[in-house]
Amino acid sequence: MSSPPALRVSVFLGLSLDGHLARADHRLDWLDLVRTDPPEDTGYTELMTSVDVLVMGRRTYDTALTFESWPFTGKRVVVLTHRPLSSRHGEESARGDLEGLLHRLAREGCRHVYLDGGDVVRQGLRADVVTDLTLSWVPTVLGAGVALFTPDLPERAWRLVRSRAFPSGLLQATYEPR
Amino acid sequence: MSSPPALRVSVFLGLSLDGHLARADHRLDWLDLVRTDPPEDTGYTELMTSVDVLVMGRRTYDTALTFESWPFTGKRVVVLTHRPLSSRHGEESARGDLEGLLHRLAREGCRHVYLDGGDVVRQGLRADVVTDLTLSWVPTVLGAGVALFTPDLPERAWRLVRSRAFPSGLLQATYEPR
Repeated sequence: MSSPPALRVSVFLGLSLDGHLARADHRLDWLDLVRTDPPEDTGYTELMTSVDVLVMGRRTYDTALTFESWPFTGKRVVVLTHRPLSSRHGEESARGDLEGLLHRLAREGCRHVYLDGGDVVRQGLRADVVTDLTLSWVPTVLGAGVALFTPDLPERAWRLVRSRAFPSGLLQATYEPR
Repeated sequence: MSSPPALRVSVFLGLSLDGHLARADHRLDWLDLVRTDPPEDTGYTELMTSVDVLVMGRRTYDTALTFESWPFTGKRVVVLTHRPLSSRHGEESARGDLEGLLHRLAREGCRHVYLDGGDVVRQGLRADVVTDLTLSWVPTVLGAGVALFTPDLPERAWRLVRSRAFPSGLLQATYEPR
């Protein structure tokens, strides 16, 4: 099984120069380094306008639940989890592997899926289903932290399709499979 | 002890998207992804024209010795090592810590040092003596490999001073301490 045809599967993540998504204790305070007023338009909002479904792991979901307001209002959300989930905002849970879920979503008419959170993104990279990978490097080295890329990932070459630097120092690059 | 005043200490490294300097077995064949004919001018040659001294660790030095020709002709080279070294190209060995060496080099009139190899670069980052850090991301995920950034590094915020993308897909950014 591979990526369903005609399904776009996006990854859009911020990471430190040393490849961390969060501090070891999952804090994100270091993102303040690139917080500006007004916020820089990194393209996330535009990406979201075309996304049909957000797929995330349990940890990302549980973190989102702690936010002051539900950050995915108006979007279909599927949580990959083996534990029961009490849906508070219409979110669905799914068991099993990401590829099976993507094929089901494609059969249901979805055209654009967004993978959120390190675990699900790594599942997507392992299954080679990611069609566009946008990385935004925050100009800091954290040392310890939660790594995006882990040594168990398979080798995969990408093609740089665009890049841009923001006044905050954020450096963003979008890659497609080579 | 910190960085000697008026001493420029440069780092200029290529790394995979997942932050590796080499495969786990130290091979660099994946750099072929961004090899073009003629080669892209990444700024390395220009940087070298201003460098007085290259400082490297033993592993980097031993690897350089295996190259068909000595890659640092005309440059003063200091190898940080505790083992004896039979100088074949005028290279010097030094024991002790990087900061002490940098202070000695500054006293000797050096103005611009280049740190080569993961071990010495990490020593430089730990000692906070790096004045400019240029990272060139090769568009590939290797999975396993030799990491540039290790979890023992201290936190350090940087300022993005310039970035550029090359037709090969190489993405380069230069940072200075914030």
